[in-house]
Amino acid sequence: MSSSFHTEFQPLTVQPQEIEEKSFEIITEELGPHDYSPEQFRIVQRVIHATADFELGRSVQFHPRAIESGIAAIRAGEPILADVQMVQVGISKPRLEAFGGDVRVYISDKDVMAEAKKENTTRAIISIRKAVREVEGGIYAIGNAPTALLELIRLVKEGIAKPSLIVGVPVGFVSAAESKEELLKLDVPFITNIGRKGGSPVAVSMINALSLLATERGE
Amino acid sequence: MSSSFHTEFQPLTVQPQEIEEKSFEIITEELGPHDYSPEQFRIVQRVIHATADFELGRSVQFHPRAIESGIAAIRAGEPILADVQMVQVGISKPRLEAFGGDVRVYISDKDVMAEAKKENTTRAIISIRKAVREVEGGIYAIGNAPTALLELIRLVKEGIAKPSLIVGVPVGFVSAAESKEELLKLDVPFITNIGRKGGSPVAVSMINALSLLATERGE
Repeated sequence: MSSSFHTEFQPLTVQPQEIEEKSFEIITEELGPHDYSPEQFRIVQRVIHATADFELGRSVQFHPRAIESGIAAIRAGEPILADVQMVQVGISKPRLEAFGGDVRVYISDKDVMAEAKKENTTRAIISIRKAVREVEGGIYAIGNAPTALLELIRLVKEGIAKPSLIVGVPVGFVSAAESKEELLKLDVPFITNIGRKGGSPVAVSMINALSLLATERGE
Repeated sequence: MSSSFHTEFQPLTVQPQEIEEKSFEIITEELGPHDYSPEQFRIVQRVIHATADFELGRSVQFHPRAIESGIAAIRAGEPILADVQMVQVGISKPRLEAFGGDVRVYISDKDVMAEAKKENTTRAIISIRKAVREVEGGIYAIGNAPTALLELIRLVKEGIAKPSLIVGVPVGFVSAAESKEELLKLDVPFITNIGRKGGSPVAVSMINALSLLATERGE
């Protein structure tokens, strides 16, 4: 049985680069007409690649300055500030490091955990406050916690946080869609989506697509 | 503006436990009638919680022995073998560690990278071979790479791999759906889903739901 299995089900290629190219062809074909700019489409394409979800892909929204500001921040070596470890580990590091950048996550820091307990709130909220205190600018990558995105929006409105880009794609049933609706109203560079869907792979794929665009700018 | 924002959009609660309970209520209500057993539903519920995707939730499939075998393996302290780091970091550790278990990932090991390059294949395939060599039984948690799942299926068919449970939910356009169709034909404990969707958060939520069930068995 195992030889027929090989013939029938092994992928035609196991070359990661070829698998990716074939995937992008399928995505472009199945998505059909859209209103995204070529650079926006590069990001949407990677979101669909990471989720196999065209509905989610079509729901992606860009602030007019999002891509330019995101690329400039990456090329300036500004850090990526991830809400959770899954986002941190998923982001491709070499392209960021080539510009002097890195990916930081504060949610499991001892001081964050202690403060959240003391204030009876989420670690996500406290970790955003710490990021805003420690970093000027930066790209926020929020793939999990609506409370993190809501706190960041509050700090932007109060003039305390001045992120170069907010990638805000938390997932869930309590406050996720609402937090993204609030983000859409801000005049700050953002990439987000409409609705409850989102998640770590969505945030990761958006950042990875952006860092590819940033790298290509220098070529 | 910031005070009206607080009133309108801060979640009513920022207690993680309450957010989760509220989410599960919404999921149960919106999902409506289903054919899952109460324990299977606990897993499906967490998948929907992690993705906000009811279509994906409804596509989850269980081998008849999946939950019993998974719970027994966790309670015996068998390791979880993750295909990628995003799955490893997402899995909740304390409940596993209470039984002596842990979560392992081999994909970035130096020997795996070297062998993949030498054999001109994916690191995912080589990392599965390493896991099968190093661990007897174990729970495989494959959230990303179809090539990893196909290799594991091949090793099961050849009688080399004898996993206690395969959580096989890779995502993507090349071989993901096909790899899961193959898994559905195996008489080995598995949890999977039908179609292209899947991903690290799906694998993570399934394992986390299982470890909760395993913990409850001892209470």
